[in-house]
Formats: sequence, structure tokens, C-alpha cells
Amino acid sequence: MPQNLTKSKKGELTRQRILEVAAPLFNQRGFAGCSIHDVLEATGLEKGGLYRHFASKEELAAECFRFMLESSVKLRTEHLADIPGAVAKLREVVDRFVNVPSPVKGGCPLLNTAIDADDGNPLLRELCRQGIEAWKARIGLIVEAGTASGELRRDIQPRRIANSIVSTLEGALMISRIEGTPIALEDARDSLHNLIASLDATSPSSPPRPAPPA
Amino acid sequence: MPQNLTKSKKGELTRQRILEVAAPLFNQRGFAGCSIHDVLEATGLEKGGLYRHFASKEELAAECFRFMLESSVKLRTEHLADIPGAVAKLREVVDRFVNVPSPVKGGCPLLNTAIDADDGNPLLRELCRQGIEAWKARIGLIVEAGTASGELRRDIQPRRIANSIVSTLEGALMISRIEGTPIALEDARDSLHNLIASLDATSPSSPPRPAPPA
Repeated sequence: MPQNLTKSKKGELTRQRILEVAAPLFNQRGFAGCSIHDVLEATGLEKGGLYRHFASKEELAAECFRFMLESSVKLRTEHLADIPGAVAKLREVVDRFVNVPSPVKGGCPLLNTAIDADDGNPLLRELCRQGIEAWKARIGLIVEAGTASGELRRDIQPRRIANSIVSTLEGALMISRIEGTPIALEDARDSLHNLIASLDATSPSSPPRPAPPA
Repeated sequence: MPQNLTKSKKGELTRQRILEVAAPLFNQRGFAGCSIHDVLEATGLEKGGLYRHFASKEELAAECFRFMLESSVKLRTEHLADIPGAVAKLREVVDRFVNVPSPVKGGCPLLNTAIDADDGNPLLRELCRQGIEAWKARIGLIVEAGTASGELRRDIQPRRIANSIVSTLEGALMISRIEGTPIALEDARDSLHNLIASLDATSPSSPPRPAPPA
């Protein structure tokens, strides 16, 4: 470590390293299944060293969730602005979720934390609710821009499209993880590509039409 | 308790009561979040009384999962045989999931256990995989019967329809539980009704057609 590193920068690095080590533990084992002892063992820290950065297990878990969500959102959205058009953007949202695994071991932190916290931990539950709301809002904005520009049909509800995409992807991820194969995620991708194609106001195949009468 | 109850019948009743009390605890808190101490406290049993019926926490959790899955499957399928036709049966599968909550407190045991066990407990993970496989197989059989009878289009893949229905319902349940509103489940129902209508080979609205030329 460079000698000119200030004490607070050192502290920030330690804090970051704790998050990087603890986040996959919480993501794989859940809040109750990951103990402070597990985090101490994995980081090599003493209790005092850990509690200097995080006041409690609750705070550590919440910061781990924020850290995971931030990495996930960055990975899933960083190229979206460069993709022109709502249809292509929505397809990219789906494809990236299907093709690029979660940046933190243990699957999607939103799904894991939602299930872990829906009957418990109110702070984690609220962070998770906000994460899902933000994801759906990002999809809703793409849909709204598409209807405004005339690319997408005007009779569609952004909220329903967002709920459909997020539900199908998260449910398929659950099935794929338990089956140990990508089939459910690939089927979800195909279904959602059909859904997205059906929104397209500019395509002759939307809504699907029978062959013109001979 | 009637005096002529044999000892083994009494044992069976106690075992059943333990499952009824412990199942919602595991379903809400997860395997790691529910301790044997919690189960003893909720049942009022001594350790010896519990271990007479279940050799370990793993065995108890597995039997709780089997018990929950059986109640859920019964609740979700008991009227299906009386409903004529594949389209109506598939709609009923969706509607019942959306309208009738899980019979055990804490949400869908498949979803909870899948997330809880995907990185851990191999026995629970395998039971869960089998539960999802069986659910998808029931949907697949409805689809196959519908294509065989000519009610459903012949170009559809039963596996993909099953994956779409299960993914969308489970993902929407996750969102609804974390949002504390039924909106995501209702949106999932509407999307899946559209999907099911698009499979119908007998309906003029499937695939959706533009108005006939004037």
C-alpha cells in the first residue's frame, strides 16, 4: 500500500474490501444464513476491525445489498443509452439479463433479498422494494419514449410491460438456477422477444397477421 | 383425545401437528433462519419429543417442504379435471395462483425454497427441482391434450408454455409480496391470458387479426 495513502483512504479501501467479500456470502446464504463469524473468517478481520466500519450485521447486510445492486444495475444498463430505439433497448434489457450472469456470486440480489426479506428484515425489504421500483421505472421510461416517438403502440401500459419483463426474467432465473440449465431463461427470452415484437407499431408483424387473402 | 386411539395413531397426529406448526416457520424464515429452538418453542415439545419424529433439522425441513407442496398442489389442481378444454384449464391455473394465496403462511414454498436452497441444502434443492418439474409437467400435459384435440395451435412447444407460465407467476408473486400490492400478480394474469389466447387455434382472435379490409 503506497505510503502516502491517508488513513481515511485506507479505511475506505478496507470498507470496500469487506463489502466485496461479504456481499457474495449474504447473496448465497441469505441474511440469517450468513453470520458475522462467517464474515470475519472470510475477511480475516477481528470483530473490532469489522465494527469500526459497520455498526451492526443489519447495516453490513444493507450496505452489501446496495453494493450488489449498484454493480448489477451498472452491468445491466451501461450500454443501453447507445442503443437506438425502444424495441432494441427492451430486447437488450432482456438479452443482457439472460446472457450475462449476476456480477456477484449467488444469482440476482433483488430476487434473493426479496425472498429472504419479504417476511423479515424491514430495512432490506425496503431497499429491495426500491430496487425493483427503479428497475421497473427504467423499463417504463423506455416504453414511454417509444410510444411518444410512435415506435411503440399507444395502447400499451408501461407499468404492465415492466411488470411482465421483470416477473418473467426473475421467475425464469429461479427455475434455471434450481434446474442447473439455461433452458428456462432462454424460453423467457423467446417469450419476451415475442411480447416486445407485439408492442412494435412500425413492424408489419405486430400484431401478428394472417396471410392476406389470396 | 379418544381413549381407543392407538399409540401409533397418536404418534401420527403429533407428527402431523409438528409439520403444521413448523412448515410456516421454515416457509417464512428459510432453512437457516428457522432453528430447532424456534420449532420447539412453537410446538411446546421437548427436544426428545421432536427427535422421536424427525431425525434431524434437515429431515424436518424436507418433510415440511413435502407437506407444503402437497397442500399447495391440492389447492391449485383439485378442480382442474372438471374444467373442459385446454384454454379454460390454463386460465384456471393462472387465475387460481393469482387469486388464492398459498395455503401456508409466507408465500409459495417452491419459490422460497428454491431461493433458499439454490446455493445450499442439496436435499431441499432436489425436492424443489422435482416440485417445479412436476408443475411444469402438469401444464405441459394440458397443452399436449389441447394440441392433440385441435383446440390449441400445433406449432407451440409445451415446455416453453410451461416455463412462461411458471416463470411469470413466480416472478410476479415475488414482486407483489415485496410491493405489498396485488398489482404485479394482476398484470401477470393479464399477460398470461393474452399468451393463452394466442395459443387458441379455434378463436378468431388468435393470432390477433387486424380488422377485415372495408
